Amino acid sequence: MVTVRLLGLDPGLQHTGWGVVESTGNRLRHIADGVVSTTADLPLAERLCQIHRALNTLMELWKPDEAAVEHTYVNKNPASALKLGQARGVVMLAPALAGLPVSEYQAMEVKRAVVGTGHADKTQVADMVRRLLPGATLRRADASDALAVAICHAHHRSSRIVLAKGYLPA
Amino acid sequence: MVTVRLLGLDPGLQHTGWGVVESTGNRLRHIADGVVSTTADLPLAERLCQIHRALNTLMELWKPDEAAVEHTYVNKNPASALKLGQARGVVMLAPALAGLPVSEYQAMEVKRAVVGTGHADKTQVADMVRRLLPGATLRRADASDALAVAICHAHHRSSRIVLAKGYLPA
Repeated sequence: MVTVRLLGLDPGLQHTGWGVVESTGNRLRHIADGVVSTTADLPLAERLCQIHRALNTLMELWKPDEAAVEHTYVNKNPASALKLGQARGVVMLAPALAGLPVSEYQAMEVKRAVVGTGHADKTQVADMVRRLLPGATLRRADASDALAVAICHAHHRSSRIVLAKGYLPA
Repeated sequence: MVTVRLLGLDPGLQHTGWGVVESTGNRLRHIADGVVSTTADLPLAERLCQIHRALNTLMELWKPDEAAVEHTYVNKNPASALKLGQARGVVMLAPALAGLPVSEYQAMEVKRAVVGTGHADKTQVADMVRRLLPGATLRRADASDALAVAICHAHHRSSRIVLAKGYLPA
């Protein structure tokens, strides 16, 4: 059975969560997780460089095959959406430049894949991530969300492969 | 007198305007301008790669010393702000990774620097850009806005230099 390494990403200008998961068939294994933090008093362009370089370093270290990013639902004001967008663009760019396919998932899809319902709260997601991935440290919530995105991608990609093979769902 | 090449950028996911201006003392010279367009039906990550690669190519070609980006005021919904932010983050990243200082200017500052008032409309800005930079083609409004940002940066950086030299304004 083929083993693929999936990099989940939860973008933010201040903190970008990341998590690497290994998927073999329908089995999942925790590899690593963490948070990329930027220096708040640096100019925006420098902070974006910090994110870009950190992501490149961790991709070199953990060698993921595919990436997945949460499509954060923004219900705040346009100014904070612009700010988040700037980080998100840079977060998506790094794996794409490295040649990794980058998938996007809505927060609802991620919750459904991990907890079973799209209306789960952060604690429920973190609890399920811990159960599905023994060994995950989850020092910060951002890393937990990133691992949740990686789990979601693992589920979706295996069902895509099943569909591609002609095993259509009943 | 020192001559510096300034790269002005007007970010957008669909079209990113760019313009290169040479500044010597208080003299300005048009070098080049254009628009980087992305393929609308490609995945977001691929479109961000298109922007990144195009900016790298034009920086190699025109060798700017400094970059300036318009801080677009977003009065639309958060979803479009997020979208614009993604492009803007990637647009700011490219020159920063190349080691260029990247300045940000509010749309009002740009208009004030180019037309003399912060309430000028797009046509007035384009007219003044044409007058200040003979030779600018301005095939698209995005390129005109990018040149306007470069002009604004030229004004601000020269006054900063004057201040740094101790010639304080009266």
